[in-house]
Amino acid sequence: MRQYLKMDEWSIIEESFDPSTHEISESIFSIGNGYMGQRANFEEQYSGASLQGSYMAGVYYPDKTRVGWWKNGYPEYFAKVLNSTNWIGIHVLLDGVALDLAQCEVKEFVRELNMKEGFLSRRFTAVMEDGKELRVEAVRFVSMKRHEIGAIRYAVTPLNFSGIITFVPYLDGDVKNKDSNYEEKFWLEVEKNAGPERSYLTLKTKKLDFHVTSVMSFDVTKNGTALELQPVLVENEKYVSSEVSFETAKDETLTLYKYVANVTSRDHGLGQLVEAGTAALSAAKSAGFDVLLQEQADTWAEKWKGSDIIIEGDVSAQQGIRFNIFQLNQTYTGEDDRLNIGPKGFTGEKYGGSTYWDTEAYCVPFYLSTADSSIARNLLIYRYKHLEKAKENARKLGFTKGALYPMVTMNGEECHNEWEITFEEIHRNGAIAYAIYNYVNYTGDKAYLGQYGLEVLAEISRFWEERVNFSKEKGKYVMLGVTGPNEYENNVNNNWYTNRIAVWTLEYTLEVLEELSKHEPARYKELVEKLGLREEETSKWKDIIANMYYPLDNERGVFLQQDGFLDKELVPVKELAPEHLPLNQNWSWDRILRSCYIKQADVLQGLYFLGDRYDLETKKRNFDFYEPLTVHESSLSPCVHSILACELGYQEKAYEMYLRTARLDLDNYNNDTEDGCHTTSMAGTWMAVIQGFAGLRVHNNELVLRPFIPSHWKSFSFNVMFRGATLKVSVGENSITVTNETDIPAAVRIYGESYRVEGHGKVAAERSQAVL
Amino acid sequence: MRQYLKMDEWSIIEESFDPSTHEISESIFSIGNGYMGQRANFEEQYSGASLQGSYMAGVYYPDKTRVGWWKNGYPEYFAKVLNSTNWIGIHVLLDGVALDLAQCEVKEFVRELNMKEGFLSRRFTAVMEDGKELRVEAVRFVSMKRHEIGAIRYAVTPLNFSGIITFVPYLDGDVKNKDSNYEEKFWLEVEKNAGPERSYLTLKTKKLDFHVTSVMSFDVTKNGTALELQPVLVENEKYVSSEVSFETAKDETLTLYKYVANVTSRDHGLGQLVEAGTAALSAAKSAGFDVLLQEQADTWAEKWKGSDIIIEGDVSAQQGIRFNIFQLNQTYTGEDDRLNIGPKGFTGEKYGGSTYWDTEAYCVPFYLSTADSSIARNLLIYRYKHLEKAKENARKLGFTKGALYPMVTMNGEECHNEWEITFEEIHRNGAIAYAIYNYVNYTGDKAYLGQYGLEVLAEISRFWEERVNFSKEKGKYVMLGVTGPNEYENNVNNNWYTNRIAVWTLEYTLEVLEELSKHEPARYKELVEKLGLREEETSKWKDIIANMYYPLDNERGVFLQQDGFLDKELVPVKELAPEHLPLNQNWSWDRILRSCYIKQADVLQGLYFLGDRYDLETKKRNFDFYEPLTVHESSLSPCVHSILACELGYQEKAYEMYLRTARLDLDNYNNDTEDGCHTTSMAGTWMAVIQGFAGLRVHNNELVLRPFIPSHWKSFSFNVMFRGATLKVSVGENSITVTNETDIPAAVRIYGESYRVEGHGKVAAERSQAVL
Repeated sequence: MRQYLKMDEWSIIEESFDPSTHEISESIFSIGNGYMGQRANFEEQYSGASLQGSYMAGVYYPDKTRVGWWKNGYPEYFAKVLNSTNWIGIHVLLDGVALDLAQCEVKEFVRELNMKEGFLSRRFTAVMEDGKELRVEAVRFVSMKRHEIGAIRYAVTPLNFSGIITFVPYLDGDVKNKDSNYEEKFWLEVEKNAGPERSYLTLKTKKLDFHVTSVMSFDVTKNGTALELQPVLVENEKYVSSEVSFETAKDETLTLYKYVANVTSRDHGLGQLVEAGTAALSAAKSAGFDVLLQEQADTWAEKWKGSDIIIEGDVSAQQGIRFNIFQLNQTYTGEDDRLNIGPKGFTGEKYGGSTYWDTEAYCVPFYLSTADSSIARNLLIYRYKHLEKAKENARKLGFTKGALYPMVTMNGEECHNEWEITFEEIHRNGAIAYAIYNYVNYTGDKAYLGQYGLEVLAEISRFWEERVNFSKEKGKYVMLGVTGPNEYENNVNNNWYTNRIAVWTLEYTLEVLEELSKHEPARYKELVEKLGLREEETSKWKDIIANMYYPLDNERGVFLQQDGFLDKELVPVKELAPEHLPLNQNWSWDRILRSCYIKQADVLQGLYFLGDRYDLETKKRNFDFYEPLTVHESSLSPCVHSILACELGYQEKAYEMYLRTARLDLDNYNNDTEDGCHTTSMAGTWMAVIQGFAGLRVHNNELVLRPFIPSHWKSFSFNVMFRGATLKVSVGENSITVTNETDIPAAVRIYGESYRVEGHGKVAAERSQAVL
Repeated sequence: MRQYLKMDEWSIIEESFDPSTHEISESIFSIGNGYMGQRANFEEQYSGASLQGSYMAGVYYPDKTRVGWWKNGYPEYFAKVLNSTNWIGIHVLLDGVALDLAQCEVKEFVRELNMKEGFLSRRFTAVMEDGKELRVEAVRFVSMKRHEIGAIRYAVTPLNFSGIITFVPYLDGDVKNKDSNYEEKFWLEVEKNAGPERSYLTLKTKKLDFHVTSVMSFDVTKNGTALELQPVLVENEKYVSSEVSFETAKDETLTLYKYVANVTSRDHGLGQLVEAGTAALSAAKSAGFDVLLQEQADTWAEKWKGSDIIIEGDVSAQQGIRFNIFQLNQTYTGEDDRLNIGPKGFTGEKYGGSTYWDTEAYCVPFYLSTADSSIARNLLIYRYKHLEKAKENARKLGFTKGALYPMVTMNGEECHNEWEITFEEIHRNGAIAYAIYNYVNYTGDKAYLGQYGLEVLAEISRFWEERVNFSKEKGKYVMLGVTGPNEYENNVNNNWYTNRIAVWTLEYTLEVLEELSKHEPARYKELVEKLGLREEETSKWKDIIANMYYPLDNERGVFLQQDGFLDKELVPVKELAPEHLPLNQNWSWDRILRSCYIKQADVLQGLYFLGDRYDLETKKRNFDFYEPLTVHESSLSPCVHSILACELGYQEKAYEMYLRTARLDLDNYNNDTEDGCHTTSMAGTWMAVIQGFAGLRVHNNELVLRPFIPSHWKSFSFNVMFRGATLKVSVGENSITVTNETDIPAAVRIYGESYRVEGHGKVAAERSQAVL
């Protein structure tokens, strides 16, 4: 944990340059636009420690699997988030000497991520070894409006000398992934050209044949006046550059504007890449940097309108929550239904893959409430499109029917290889089913079920049907050999959460079938035929629903995480000597496994998902039993505890849980932010505020609110989108107001009272001071 | 499975050359002397597929661990069985053209492993591309008497031409391990010299600084007359050779005698290696090839006297059992208590490590019965010497006391890295304790307990004490998160076998303490002090013994393999469609885990070890329950089933189980013999015959026999050693005779009747035809 960033409501600001935190900053100050992303690497040469990262969404590499001991069923590859052409690079030379912040004195350094308007800026004065001082001011962004465009303004001013300043903007495709399994490079050169007007470079991946073309062009001005350019052009292996040099007098400002279009074969035909890139680039360059930057601010203003959270009285919390919302919006815009939300977004390459169950469990709620419903819908359609692959995956593991979605994927194929997770953490199937329910419940878009939802639900139900078996011993259905959300237990029998979400899937699938048969009989018939759904299957589902086994502790009245949980020594985390924590750094794996300690909400995850099926007393008993045993060594854990704590009136506990992830990356809480930000868990922090502190739910087509204000805050307000309306919810000391910023009326329920918020109308309610 | 070897009682014979089975033959025809071993690679150049392997016992390489996902507690390295200098190499050239069996026609090829006398021979006629025919006859062995010496006689006769024949005997240290984790070579050159009298090459390992020196010398005769040699000497990187050429007329026989001494820094000081090697080499060379070969035959005659099994009426079985006995005697001679028995002996590099629990569970019984008791004792002392490392290992995994022996080791340190095995297959500790009991029971050497045994027992007992925990739920001690002998279950709770062997260890340790306090009070006091053994510890052990939980099925009257076993679908193996088998090639790992199928005897392993504590009815119920569920996909499984089947009178089942491993490698039953032979499981086959068919046990200081003859055999007889006597046991159609080949009398019990077999005496008993 290291706090070195300045508190500010709208920006992340670093006020001096420290090479030891540079890689952390490279993660935190990353920029992205859902289509591409870029770590906060320096434009100019930097010979210090740095993790270079330029990522194109959906472009990945199937890196040959590396394991110690092969297990049947492992996939052949792990999909790596692919470091692509370095398009930001600009060498800067002063009288032939390269500017390099590892090789000079750095003064007045400020790096700022302007989250309100969506750009990264950096300014500093470099004192070269020979005493020359150069002032640098750089701004860059990847355009939210023109998703293939990145733009950089790089201005230098000699402060105490006159001389020749050289800029070498370049495209460098000779890059590698730090996490390559066999230290290979993943790219081959296809074509390149360094030209006076524009240069380009096309690479393709060694496998899968992804093509990426980067096209660059640039202008240079001196004190605002455009200069004529006669660049020296260089072409090397996977590299093109243009070199321009200018006599520059003291206090003159030389500004380079670098425009780049990055286009991929995901969106353009193989023969059209250079043309498409050139067209996008030309349009952007004609618009000019200032216009592009204004577009960026406007687009972000629109994003913030739907998703902002305003906290009064706590700048640190304000900055933290805005950072999370900003990163989520940078990572996924929902415009491309082939994309998803990788665990590190565009801020690092670690873990690989783009899609985990994090998406359904944590990100879908965020996008449901903060964006047009089409965005969350696209996340659902992503899985619909992978249904055939999920069926293949189930076949590969020996199932005769049904679908098992992968633990980690890029294209629908499983690419993870750790048996206790890949093969056994099958509750992910439940989260994918649940997201369909969640979406339909939130949006009211029942048509989705007939269009896409039911097919996914039915195939998942078939999987559960075959995955359980009937225990003669228990006279019940059981589910053996699974890993629940709590990955500090492996290969257990009858994980309560998995059994429960499986049965819930069956129940919901039957409910959807019933509804469909009533309201869309033609589509129902069509789907039953397409699925080949037989009555004996639905009967079996009903039998499983009626006869599923759940491990219980009747004495305590709690659901047991899995069979045998009570055989463990139950010692609360707080009684552990501090040197044992975190367990994952101090205990051998077997010791963790046989201990009672819980990495991540498991039974409680189920009580959160199925919150309307359990009464408060049940939630309380389970929370009181499991919370003291939970170490929260997954960043996806505290939000669920926080939300439940809010429901139970444990306000201090809720706030404590919220704090554990609110500034996870900004404060480098887990000492690993240099690898990238914990993007998906950011949605969890958002959930803690909106579903926790504000108590937001959707029930019976009403937006339900039951807010309280953490004692450290004065008030908070936020925007949410609900069934076409954008609502501003303000939680003040004494009252709650909901203002409708659209002309679409909305049904809202505050502390149990129903209200209709008319278009552009407002309702107010007294704030309940009650604990529950 | 592929049967291409000729049936013969004393030899393994291959009668034609087939490159597609060459690597299998390289494993099967391996030679070794407990100090070094050599796969049956060809002496002359061979450009076809071949796994080169020259191994020096105890010389290994700590290869950096390779895993997919690191788990806390994993060791940094995996100890690799190290492919060392190729010392057998002899290039043969005919008028400058290299003899290479992949490049010429091969006629009249015969390869023979003479097990009676312990050498490998090969003869063939090579027809070169230009039509020249050359007859080759080669014999080689590694000396059982002079363990650093290997010798080769390589004779060539031109059959249809006269010309220049060139021999290039060489030493080549530029070798690699096929299983290197990062494709590294493991050796560095230290020194070398190619000389007219002798050449040598010293290498050292890149880590751990093992030095190996090979010294070679040679003679050449023509038609039996020694030739004067003026070799052309070559020194290259890690390579020395001597080239000699001779005009050779048609039908003249040119014979090269190559003598090599391989000496290591395990036995000699670093500065003395060349000297020691040269001395050993000179002595061997002066003795001459024929004398060395006679010594070899004599030494093997002695080995066979203690360990032979003679089967009448079944040549295939005869060959199979002799091959197993031969390989075991080649692998471990017991002369060096720092050595052990690797899973592939000296026949391949796969799996790495030299010591698994195979040693205690399967090999100790073999050496107890077939060799002087000092041999098995050395295997025990091996573990005694590793006690400190085993304590360190337990500390590393978080235990405050006690010892956990490694799953796989070379020097006492754990080098395995698969959490469910490395950390959880802790029953190995029980086998190590059991071997002490087994040794003392067989030999009567109670002094061993005070000298070495008790310390090991006490530290293992302490481990169990800390590894169990008290379940409030059950009111019993439980053992959570283990993997039993059946590795088709991982991370289970209360594996019956592990719980049972843990409690047995505590019982036996207390018994030994009691005995020692009575009979060796001074040593007792000394040991209690050395161990710091406290009364509260032994009380705790008694409490655990009294209150251990064992999973049971009271209805069926069987011990349950682990908690929850009865929740599985219990479908006998024979009801599985054949395409599912073997499961490990056809099912994904999770499917195997949640199935009822058993890889290797687990509960039954316990009933075998603790056979005198369970009545036949109990054994029968458990056998009848588990045998149909067992797939025997470990070669260590069938022997235990075979032995129990014999006890239960299931003679056909016993024979069926025996057959599954009797010729495992000779018939390449598992399609993996090219990687090396299944050396440790060979002891299991021996057990099936001696402890199974002959029913040999030691009980109350008597050698117990209860033989039957498999219906496919006419009779069988075998030699066993028991308390100083060598007994020949003949099981004939109507009678059992036991002949004492020494002057030490022995107590024998046949079908429940006690006999005293006087020195050089004989007893006979009628053979029982009863089933039980």
